[in-house]
Amino acid sequence: MVEFKGYALTSPDAWKSLELVSFEPKRFEDEDVELAITHCGVCGSDVHVLRQGWGNVPYTPLVCGHEIVGKVTRVGPKVTEFKVGDRVGVGAVVNSCGTCRRCTSGNEQYCPSMTQTINARHPDGSPVQGGFATAIRANERLVFAVPDGIESKDAASMFCGGLTVFSPMRRNNVGPGSKIGVLGIGGLGHYAILFGKALGAEVYAFTHSPGKREDAKKLGADHVIDTGIEGFQKPFFDTLDLIISTTNVFQRGTSFSTFTSMLTINGKFVNVGLPDVDKAMPPLHAFDMLTSGAFIGGSYVGSKADCCAMLKIAVEKGVKPWVQELPMKDYGVALEGVHNGAARYRYVLTQDIIPIP
Amino acid sequence: MVEFKGYALTSPDAWKSLELVSFEPKRFEDEDVELAITHCGVCGSDVHVLRQGWGNVPYTPLVCGHEIVGKVTRVGPKVTEFKVGDRVGVGAVVNSCGTCRRCTSGNEQYCPSMTQTINARHPDGSPVQGGFATAIRANERLVFAVPDGIESKDAASMFCGGLTVFSPMRRNNVGPGSKIGVLGIGGLGHYAILFGKALGAEVYAFTHSPGKREDAKKLGADHVIDTGIEGFQKPFFDTLDLIISTTNVFQRGTSFSTFTSMLTINGKFVNVGLPDVDKAMPPLHAFDMLTSGAFIGGSYVGSKADCCAMLKIAVEKGVKPWVQELPMKDYGVALEGVHNGAARYRYVLTQDIIPIP
Repeated sequence: MVEFKGYALTSPDAWKSLELVSFEPKRFEDEDVELAITHCGVCGSDVHVLRQGWGNVPYTPLVCGHEIVGKVTRVGPKVTEFKVGDRVGVGAVVNSCGTCRRCTSGNEQYCPSMTQTINARHPDGSPVQGGFATAIRANERLVFAVPDGIESKDAASMFCGGLTVFSPMRRNNVGPGSKIGVLGIGGLGHYAILFGKALGAEVYAFTHSPGKREDAKKLGADHVIDTGIEGFQKPFFDTLDLIISTTNVFQRGTSFSTFTSMLTINGKFVNVGLPDVDKAMPPLHAFDMLTSGAFIGGSYVGSKADCCAMLKIAVEKGVKPWVQELPMKDYGVALEGVHNGAARYRYVLTQDIIPIP
Repeated sequence: MVEFKGYALTSPDAWKSLELVSFEPKRFEDEDVELAITHCGVCGSDVHVLRQGWGNVPYTPLVCGHEIVGKVTRVGPKVTEFKVGDRVGVGAVVNSCGTCRRCTSGNEQYCPSMTQTINARHPDGSPVQGGFATAIRANERLVFAVPDGIESKDAASMFCGGLTVFSPMRRNNVGPGSKIGVLGIGGLGHYAILFGKALGAEVYAFTHSPGKREDAKKLGADHVIDTGIEGFQKPFFDTLDLIISTTNVFQRGTSFSTFTSMLTINGKFVNVGLPDVDKAMPPLHAFDMLTSGAFIGGSYVGSKADCCAMLKIAVEKGVKPWVQELPMKDYGVALEGVHNGAARYRYVLTQDIIPIP
């Protein structure tokens, strides 16, 4: 039996005290790629799952981590894109059906039969284990080639944090001449500033945190707006083509019209924050979207095509995320930092269970 | 002094007992067109205003009506598009600034200084009076030429009811190959079916009203779905590119995911119903929009460019709304019919205060 090892949730209450366990990986299939993990980012979704904000965990042990970089160690006979030794990444999804309309139209992340990298089961019922581990197997459809010119530690967190904000920018044609708002400057927000600038947009960063205003400027934001000031939105009426909202919690009394009033005609507010299931967004009234024909939408990570476009831009423009590296055994520091908002702006764990290949 | 006459709300409680009053029209300006009104549709918005669902009426007497057809009787010296005798229409807006970015980009209905046809004041503070009247004055920017080939009684209600559903279809590229949902089969919904078919789309009509299912088919809907059946949405997963929702009231317990689950990737749910201000839409959770990258949006009537496109299609495809004509003095029948949902599907009042020119 093949054994992988990983830092796993073994007791539902002990979300910061994972245990190093051995586990059996999924059955290796013809389109699968196996990689020896060298880096894995820590994302808010990991914390949501570990703290059970999205519901009870369906099994233990449960290994989180879904911003993965590693080296290919094995490929199935039907794999065409990768060979042993390639440096590759895996994000929030490890498999999809490959045949539905979504899979065949470059939207495989939305495949109704897709398999998420954490907190999910494979089609055969076996638990999926994520990236705080020695290795992982994923369908090549969900494996991304990491180009030369990006360090692994920088690439890792792009595969969920970066992609989640890049995909809606790409799908809404952000480029030179665009004006975009970034709401909330955390891990995702910091990527939204970086990629917004890389795409040539004028970036308006919105934060209520005084300590992050300077960071937003250093990240490249053209304008930094303090959302703690009453009426902060007024000078920006009819200004923004797209707002990427990375906020998980909207302050009580927040109205969508605060944000939609800043949008240009038929502009879009795309929410990529994922609050716990018991937290609705602000109450929505038809009038919120009336005065500019605005849209409020969501987006789930990104497709492989989105990812390839992101990596290309990242190389061309030298996109450099603010990343703090920690050995994998220090996952607790990273989880706590993500949970309490201390991350500046992304933690990446490096392999320490096995020698890095 | 010039005097117009109209059926006006004079007592805030007497929304179905309007009084025939004389009133002074707005000052005639250089870009204004004056028309002798021959027809005026009755819209849900008139009922909302008269019943004060959108707040207290700001003045009395108040003349409603904003789906207007008439003959030009006077043009200002700067008017270039119209001459006396032309058959023209006016919708929900009578003026806009003409210089802002919205006005100069074909979005004059969203001009922050625009003047609505009912329940509003002109820039000089004088009350706006609508179309249940002998005549009206409007800036030529908001006046529409009625082409030969459309009867006045059919054109009238297109200027709000028709345009409100046509504009989001046009702006979202509905055409042959599109699949669109129409939620709620009333005045707006009936237009959404007619124009959806005229544009070449496959139309899915959703109604909980058994009596309207046959009508929806006669109007041209390809599929009619009973929303009273639990799980009605399930067969239509990933099917609709656009849903036009004309519903004012969502049943308790309705979730947006019911509707967004039917959308194709990055599809749009455009709400054009306008509930009273105290009625929020269903609670919105980030997950509702996650599984297909969906958008929920709004739309306000349409621009002149939208309107011209609508009239062109209406002539080409012979769009024929279901209209019941009544003399203007029978406004009460129409208001009551709109209020209680008896309209099948649009009332149009014909001039009876003065001889039709």
